[in-house]
Amino acid sequence: MGADLLAIRRLAIIGCGLIGGSFGMALRDALPGLVVAGYGRSQTNLLEAQRRGALTEVAPTLADAVSDADVVLVSVPVGALTNTLHAIAPHLKADAILMDAGSTKQDMVDAAKAVFNQPTANGFTLSQVVPAHPIAGKEKAGVAHAEATLYQDRLVILTPTTDTTPAATATAQALWQAVGASVQVMNAARHDHVFGAVSHLPHLLAFAYMNGVDPTTIAMGGTGFQDFTRIAGSDPAVWRDILHTNRDAVLAQLTQFEDALAAFKACIASGDNDTLTHLISEASAQRKAWQLPTGRTPSNDDDAA
Amino acid sequence: MGADLLAIRRLAIIGCGLIGGSFGMALRDALPGLVVAGYGRSQTNLLEAQRRGALTEVAPTLADAVSDADVVLVSVPVGALTNTLHAIAPHLKADAILMDAGSTKQDMVDAAKAVFNQPTANGFTLSQVVPAHPIAGKEKAGVAHAEATLYQDRLVILTPTTDTTPAATATAQALWQAVGASVQVMNAARHDHVFGAVSHLPHLLAFAYMNGVDPTTIAMGGTGFQDFTRIAGSDPAVWRDILHTNRDAVLAQLTQFEDALAAFKACIASGDNDTLTHLISEASAQRKAWQLPTGRTPSNDDDAA
Repeated sequence: MGADLLAIRRLAIIGCGLIGGSFGMALRDALPGLVVAGYGRSQTNLLEAQRRGALTEVAPTLADAVSDADVVLVSVPVGALTNTLHAIAPHLKADAILMDAGSTKQDMVDAAKAVFNQPTANGFTLSQVVPAHPIAGKEKAGVAHAEATLYQDRLVILTPTTDTTPAATATAQALWQAVGASVQVMNAARHDHVFGAVSHLPHLLAFAYMNGVDPTTIAMGGTGFQDFTRIAGSDPAVWRDILHTNRDAVLAQLTQFEDALAAFKACIASGDNDTLTHLISEASAQRKAWQLPTGRTPSNDDDAA
Repeated sequence: MGADLLAIRRLAIIGCGLIGGSFGMALRDALPGLVVAGYGRSQTNLLEAQRRGALTEVAPTLADAVSDADVVLVSVPVGALTNTLHAIAPHLKADAILMDAGSTKQDMVDAAKAVFNQPTANGFTLSQVVPAHPIAGKEKAGVAHAEATLYQDRLVILTPTTDTTPAATATAQALWQAVGASVQVMNAARHDHVFGAVSHLPHLLAFAYMNGVDPTTIAMGGTGFQDFTRIAGSDPAVWRDILHTNRDAVLAQLTQFEDALAAFKACIASGDNDTLTHLISEASAQRKAWQLPTGRTPSNDDDAA
């Protein structure tokens, strides 16, 4: 753990579901004595989070949650992000670290730039904002499924803004490492391109495949079908937000896919078996050369990826 | 085991790789005393098959392998199918059962109809032909990887021709059940439609995805990427044959997919989040309602499916 974490006494979690709740549990394990205050729409949910040990206290107001927090984690649906940042802005300490946990990052960078385009009354600035994307998730959402080990051996991407200080990024990195994750830092545009390519487009293709396939045939699907379509069972609201928010990167990647598919279609239709063999060989070799990044435990779900 | 299997004393395997070799091993276990004669292009391979117990003898000629066989299993690449049927035709006993093991079935039905358009000199007819598709495979091909348990708890589809007798189909069914498989019977066109939908199209999409994706991004792929692309690592020659042979069904299914994808693309591009939510919800519900057919063991590969 970095020495700078010793100064962290109070965490505020705004939006206390699977991601926020698990962060609270895990950071409490890592930093004994840490106060974790939660705020959200549902009092029932917050009390459940407290009961499960994700929070040490339920804050009566947003101001109460945020005012003294050394670290603020905003984990709300994409659609509520900008309003939430506006609401917390007047209450943030000047030296607080502000993070989100969304699956797309340019939107968070843009929202933070808009909200923190000048220092707040307390002196909080964009320099303290560290957008984050923990690549972790479970089939079931909600704080009821939160667990202290959710980030163990998982990857977290940080996408600091151009104004974010190296010290703020380093603190954020130390926090995620303290809960067991490995951390990579990249800019938000690169993040959205990468995850548009390796996660969002596969989800889109799996969704479209499920909608197009003759439903009378799927009872005969085997293990290939099972694996290929697994991500099609992902949560609709989460994936609507991701596909909508990252639409530019996803549509650009989709064009690449359509070009590759057109090449297959042409040689299948014309019976050009040499080209077909070549195209499959390229795909097969590329897949066989790939392996899951080290330090990441295979999971049965990565809705949040 | 059906009582009719007691009359089966001699099996001929033409093309002795993973599929043929495993069938020899498994049927020898099920029918003690069975003679299994093998014939193929490579003498080295046939000797290896005999050493591993898949064959009891290596036949010096195709005629030697087939002449006295009660059951003949042809397991050769699609491109060699018609020539192989022509070559064995004059040697088949009138009451022999002839099966193949290919992943596409209309091509086998058509080839058999063309080769056996009239009774052979020995009196063998189309009535004894039972095209088969064992849904089993492994990552590694070749008789070196054959095993007696390959068909245990797997599904085998039989697609009898319109001339095939119910008795011939029943014997074929009993043979596959004797090696541990469950059997379904359907016509060849339906088979090719079903597997075009649940297996061949997913392979095509996974190949195209791998060819289209920005290679600088895939190091960040997670478990979703891993599962979605697993089938893209399949054998190029096998899948060239399948996509070529079943091109009509595959291209028809591809059109359905393209229509479903266009619907997604339109609402992502226009920002129509209600429709996007609806489309994802349909896909997600359909996938969640699906389950792997009972009696089938998940495998790490289904190249042959």
